[in-house]
Amino acid sequence: MKNMTINISTSFLRIVSLGLAVIWLSLSSLATALANDDAVPIENEDTVYLYLESGVVVIHLSSAIAPAHVKRFKALVSEGFYNGLDFYRVIDGFVAQGGDVTETKVSVNKTPLRAEFTREITPESSFVVVQSPEFLAEQTGFIDSFPAGRSQSDKVEWLVHCPGTIAMARDNAADSATTEFYIVIGQAPRHLDRNMSVFGRVIHGMQHVQAAKRGDRDQDSGVIQSPAQRTKILAAKLGNAVAPEKQLQFTVETVSSEAFQSRLESARTLDNPFFHFKGSGNIDVCYYQPRITQLK
Amino acid sequence: MKNMTINISTSFLRIVSLGLAVIWLSLSSLATALANDDAVPIENEDTVYLYLESGVVVIHLSSAIAPAHVKRFKALVSEGFYNGLDFYRVIDGFVAQGGDVTETKVSVNKTPLRAEFTREITPESSFVVVQSPEFLAEQTGFIDSFPAGRSQSDKVEWLVHCPGTIAMARDNAADSATTEFYIVIGQAPRHLDRNMSVFGRVIHGMQHVQAAKRGDRDQDSGVIQSPAQRTKILAAKLGNAVAPEKQLQFTVETVSSEAFQSRLESARTLDNPFFHFKGSGNIDVCYYQPRITQLK
Repeated sequence: MKNMTINISTSFLRIVSLGLAVIWLSLSSLATALANDDAVPIENEDTVYLYLESGVVVIHLSSAIAPAHVKRFKALVSEGFYNGLDFYRVIDGFVAQGGDVTETKVSVNKTPLRAEFTREITPESSFVVVQSPEFLAEQTGFIDSFPAGRSQSDKVEWLVHCPGTIAMARDNAADSATTEFYIVIGQAPRHLDRNMSVFGRVIHGMQHVQAAKRGDRDQDSGVIQSPAQRTKILAAKLGNAVAPEKQLQFTVETVSSEAFQSRLESARTLDNPFFHFKGSGNIDVCYYQPRITQLK
Repeated sequence: MKNMTINISTSFLRIVSLGLAVIWLSLSSLATALANDDAVPIENEDTVYLYLESGVVVIHLSSAIAPAHVKRFKALVSEGFYNGLDFYRVIDGFVAQGGDVTETKVSVNKTPLRAEFTREITPESSFVVVQSPEFLAEQTGFIDSFPAGRSQSDKVEWLVHCPGTIAMARDNAADSATTEFYIVIGQAPRHLDRNMSVFGRVIHGMQHVQAAKRGDRDQDSGVIQSPAQRTKILAAKLGNAVAPEKQLQFTVETVSSEAFQSRLESARTLDNPFFHFKGSGNIDVCYYQPRITQLK
């Protein structure tokens, strides 16, 4: 087997961050990485389970920027709104868009939502800067463990679009999202940053979302006309409503942990014999993210 | 249905580029886009078909930077080397690595290859600049229709890693690639640019690669120990060796076409009522790529 980006020696252990980056830590910093305060549990109440035919997808919700959208999504999941619906618009390399394509399904939870694209920067903001300046934003980094952007000049911060990001679809009007959502399945569509209400990300089962049957980009903008051809959402459940023996448990690395900071440093320097070219020193926050570990 | 990023009016048609970007063209520029010289056929001899259980994957080869790697890959495909092998190392958000994990399969085509990470810039270089400066390279743009990077100070250019990129795996030594390859299934791992010999990209069936069964990042660096658990490569064939009635046909938009240039301009300005925030004006070449269209 070719290591491709890595190699094992007696003095190093190999860690792959969130399945994204291949990183080296010395044994001593690995021990630190495994200390409890370097990772925090993801609470069941902050998750939603999507059951697809090929497997379960777990979404980690963030109320940091779009609390009303989280509340709406949870209310819809709770009432069973998405059960039996599908991913009706799937564009390869872009998004899988799910929900009720007809917009006729009855619910008390479908009044248009006020946009929550960004929040004002306050002294209490939990934003941790990783890259400044960045290519597509003034600054990028993390809000809690979610990839985020910030503009000091506009005094706002937001969650950025990365693979796995979930947000509500809308029409041209900012305040027009109701029930339909999308999940990013390709390269980060960063032009949607500050334009959409991002409320979470996939932390488990991304392969099932990525396997969604594609529509034809050139016809109907990727909408799959025949319902039989679409990837079904068998059911959606709040994490808390999943039977305890079927609940999965995850931790997410803290951004301030020595392990994560050490990986960022390695990413900046590519200080590893595998890398013959040492890079630009810049960091793409969609690529280098805190590790999510499944405990059961 | 929420348009999410788009809307239809009588005066506009919606075009989704390579499934990546959502773009507007007026009817007049659409007509131009459809003119023959704005797209060129992808020749069968420049393709390889991978047959997975869930469907066929078509790879478009580029000899621009790594001609010896293309020659090697075609020779291996031609001799049936990959038939019955599998994706043995799959890390979510990173790569699906395929071939012979044991490195024991016999072939006359497995001597170590000389690295082809970059090529020297010459006056004849076909590089078209799209973004300068860029975040992770001095310049990015396209070589033919492939996303590429360039350093004027180092006088070299290369193909960048984007979702769907295929390259040969290697050990720490630059000249150590033999038969194993990887395909990017997540956010662009741009730290591999100038470090790997990139020789093509997936143009069809990316969902089948993305659906590959994942390994555990924390154990064995994503290697799936049980062969039964791996996603199989039933067969690999040169495009020319596929029965004519089963050959697919594709065109790729030329970078200089009015349609593509117009989409780039739209991407820079986000001049569309859907976008309330108009972006940074910068372009991620992994996101905005010339359209590939399947003719049959």
